[in-house]
Amino acid sequence: MTITTAIVGYGNLGRSAETLIKAQPDMELFGIFSRRTELDTDTPVYPVDSINDYADKIDVLYLCLGSATDIPEQAVSFAEHFTTVDTYDNHKQIPDHYARMDAAARESGNVAVVATGWDPGLFSLNRVIGASLFPEPQQNTFWGRGLSQGHSNAIRGIEGVRFGVQYTIPREDAIAAAKAGRGSEIDGKSAHLRQCWVVADEADQDRIRDTIVNMPDYFVGYQTEVHFISESDFQRDHQGLPHGGHVITSGTLGASKSTVEFALDLESNPDFTAAALVAYGRAAARLAADGATGAYTVLQVPPYLLSTKSLEDLLREDV
Amino acid sequence: MTITTAIVGYGNLGRSAETLIKAQPDMELFGIFSRRTELDTDTPVYPVDSINDYADKIDVLYLCLGSATDIPEQAVSFAEHFTTVDTYDNHKQIPDHYARMDAAARESGNVAVVATGWDPGLFSLNRVIGASLFPEPQQNTFWGRGLSQGHSNAIRGIEGVRFGVQYTIPREDAIAAAKAGRGSEIDGKSAHLRQCWVVADEADQDRIRDTIVNMPDYFVGYQTEVHFISESDFQRDHQGLPHGGHVITSGTLGASKSTVEFALDLESNPDFTAAALVAYGRAAARLAADGATGAYTVLQVPPYLLSTKSLEDLLREDV
Repeated sequence: MTITTAIVGYGNLGRSAETLIKAQPDMELFGIFSRRTELDTDTPVYPVDSINDYADKIDVLYLCLGSATDIPEQAVSFAEHFTTVDTYDNHKQIPDHYARMDAAARESGNVAVVATGWDPGLFSLNRVIGASLFPEPQQNTFWGRGLSQGHSNAIRGIEGVRFGVQYTIPREDAIAAAKAGRGSEIDGKSAHLRQCWVVADEADQDRIRDTIVNMPDYFVGYQTEVHFISESDFQRDHQGLPHGGHVITSGTLGASKSTVEFALDLESNPDFTAAALVAYGRAAARLAADGATGAYTVLQVPPYLLSTKSLEDLLREDV
Repeated sequence: MTITTAIVGYGNLGRSAETLIKAQPDMELFGIFSRRTELDTDTPVYPVDSINDYADKIDVLYLCLGSATDIPEQAVSFAEHFTTVDTYDNHKQIPDHYARMDAAARESGNVAVVATGWDPGLFSLNRVIGASLFPEPQQNTFWGRGLSQGHSNAIRGIEGVRFGVQYTIPREDAIAAAKAGRGSEIDGKSAHLRQCWVVADEADQDRIRDTIVNMPDYFVGYQTEVHFISESDFQRDHQGLPHGGHVITSGTLGASKSTVEFALDLESNPDFTAAALVAYGRAAARLAADGATGAYTVLQVPPYLLSTKSLEDLLREDV
């Protein structure tokens, strides 16, 4: 089957998704829905207000929207008319987002795959699988060094911030401890530094710094550095979007020890986040075609549904 | 719910499974079924011929049997009466094993989760997920340095072999190429050396060497070394069961490159294989309790079913 897809939102994630969808052998891109009518793309662009007129033409709608406000405010309205996939990344709010999307998707007879991407997403999957293997798992997640889209968006949402990025940097001593089986001595917050680089007028800087370090869920509890720099320095040094990380799980099994590691090394965080999003869109389309309704997290999706190959071919070639 | 389990077969895998089942908060071990009546264990032991008398008492039967002959000959007869999980590891025969177990389990109204463990099993899962992320994935699997249970069993099945082990050793140049993004230059067979250590009478050695290097699926096509040593050297140097490996997938996403790695470092291969087996047994019990029937590979099992935690708790704590 050919899966007809559309994108709503055209920031970094939307642009990456556009490129990747066009590279899939089993997908076509109907169009991009945006509040902006002039986008620099060859893909047809439609005003987002008109999206429900196209509900019967689109198998999967990729929600390439920010997690800070767009997803909480808009995602349910899309799930009322479309099978959707999103990369909502506010971990503590995922149960609530899942519940709201589940209700909307069940009501409309659609599927909503929520919180894809890599963390949440593929890292969640590896945390759950890793922990399921050990009676007493020791598990540590490390991020970076890399730019966090969600946290950077949160910074850029603060009034007076002209440019801003946040890098998450694992502490070397923490990584060494986890690899040596001493992961219980460290926790996620003490293992990472959150480093923010911001361009703003001097008069706004104290308020911006205060807003960042006190932002619930995103920064509270972490060692957070906020650096204000000139626009020219920002443009020169902070244009890349690298990221990566490690989920390390270890434990004792009978009389032996084992370590399980899942690691990502990404030149572009939005490109890789979009890659996971696009693959889970394939799963969403297949689940919906099979009559499923409601919300799914990556934990609930049978993994073969991500592949362009049939189950039969996978069993023959990849298992 | 408490899952009542039983084990058939009491070699390395069965002993590891026994220890791990007893460490699960949601499982109890009804007993071990074996052809041998005297086993060194506190667990109740029953003759395997009587197993069908206990079909209504057992939620999941762990098939801790060898892949070379036991699983092909016996697994279907167990699936005719029990929900089963196995670690069948003859990759090329998995589609056939899956089909036979699927037919038996559908007929009997049970679930059969097949080919768990780590390769096939968790490595299969990571190969499929990794490849699904890239339009043109470059994927390499490396094994070891470690002892391969399946290959060692195959060697020990040859007439005249008194003791035998096989270590799989990744070539350093191959690992370096994959990490540098040049994985397309290597293939699995050229990337690994299969090193066999065998104790046998001198008169049998030429025939044994010939049988090993010409064994289909297991050794044909690999660089294979066969070393004959004394029993005392074997006992001194080849009692451990370490293993491990890497699934490395890389590719281009738009204008950027990403690398995804899944790695295992295992002091005991059977302990870790049993850990995956036991976790997939939990999934089998849940699928069966939910009314599912037929065979499942790891590719088809929703990952949250592996966990002792509820989906709600996972979404709150691990996603």
